[in-house]
Amino acid sequence: MKSYTEYLVFETKKRKEMVHITDIVERIVAKSGVRDGLCFVSPMHITAAVYVNDHEDGLIEDIAEWLETVAPVRPNYRHHRTGEDNGDAHLKSLLLHHETTLPVTNGRLDLGTWQRVFYAEFDGQRKKRVIVKVLGVE
Amino acid sequence: MKSYTEYLVFETKKRKEMVHITDIVERIVAKSGVRDGLCFVSPMHITAAVYVNDHEDGLIEDIAEWLETVAPVRPNYRHHRTGEDNGDAHLKSLLLHHETTLPVTNGRLDLGTWQRVFYAEFDGQRKKRVIVKVLGVE
Amino acid sequence: MKSYTEYLVFETKKRKEMVHITDIVERIVAKSGVRDGLCFVSPMHITAAVYVNDHEDGLIEDIAEWLETVAPVRPNYRHHRTGEDNGDAHLKSLLLHHETTLPVTNGRLDLGTWQRVFYAEFDGQRKKRVIVKVLGVE
Repeated sequence: MKSYTEYLVFETKKRKEMVHITDIVERIVAKSGVRDGLCFVSPMHITAAVYVNDHEDGLIEDIAEWLETVAPVRPNYRHHRTGEDNGDAHLKSLLLHHETTLPVTNGRLDLGTWQRVFYAEFDGQRKKRVIVKVLGVE
Repeated sequence: MKSYTEYLVFETKKRKEMVHITDIVERIVAKSGVRDGLCFVSPMHITAAVYVNDHEDGLIEDIAEWLETVAPVRPNYRHHRTGEDNGDAHLKSLLLHHETTLPVTNGRLDLGTWQRVFYAEFDGQRKKRVIVKVLGVE
Repeated sequence: MKSYTEYLVFETKKRKEMVHITDIVERIVAKSGVRDGLCFVSPMHITAAVYVNDHEDGLIEDIAEWLETVAPVRPNYRHHRTGEDNGDAHLKSLLLHHETTLPVTNGRLDLGTWQRVFYAEFDGQRKKRVIVKVLGVE
């Protein structure tokens, strides 16, 4: 039984950006030595999320637009009294439920054909960390 | 320490449908031989979700209506340029956060009195897979 | 390899309330003897949630207001035909995805600087249980 951890760092060029990370996570699973178990992936920040869906540009734009509709940028969040201007980014992180857990079988991510893993940045242009932890049997 | 996996297949009659699966998951936990740990349940698709809530018909309709309000069917999702017409199903899957993790104690799902597990199909009428992985101590 | 479980009980004074529980969960992780693994935290109820975000009063009010906008109190949920009046609480629980998983490294919660854990009560003023299960290597 084994637990293996890596920390990733992302610094997106745009303030809001979706970064495809399936290959990165797959490599960590391979390095972990875990043959069967679970792989947990989560930002260590409260203005970002990790989600699983399609790697299709149109849909990625649809998701960004939908997040903006449901959790919009607004000047008057109470949180902004602290000097911040990222209230919407906190809500978008909650809406996508910041974290994900992925199954590992035969030493690989056990995903469906179209399931891809994304890091969703909602307040970037600075270094942000993501933890990947693989837990299972060797 | 043990990891045990089964794959379920659902083919719903309606395009959108909620399927109660607590009993199925409970049987897999019993077969797994895991006495204490976690049970991960996730569709292997990006237009479905697994969620935990009440097994009450009125509420199930309320949930479906709410999903439609927050992530509506629309003709003009960018994703539809690929020939698909299921943009809303991707957003509904994100809104319910496709996956769930359930606690296992004494060889059984350790759920509250009213917690029930559902497979939420948003683009069905075809075979869709769900992975159930139980990880823990024997 | 070890699995350790505790059950917490919350009885909030207000019907809707956010309770900061990072310290409580941290103490359970310390007691668990798990050095590296995952900590699962979930209400055992379907009208509450556990979420991770900022411990900042303005933002907590923003989150509550946002939940009310996206999953509002309404008299006419079908669920209310059963005699209940908490349809919105079920939807809010789904919107925040009731559960969370937290990474454990070196015997401690491995959270980012601003990540804090909250119990979000949407139908309180009565005893509600939360399960905390720590799974990993000793």
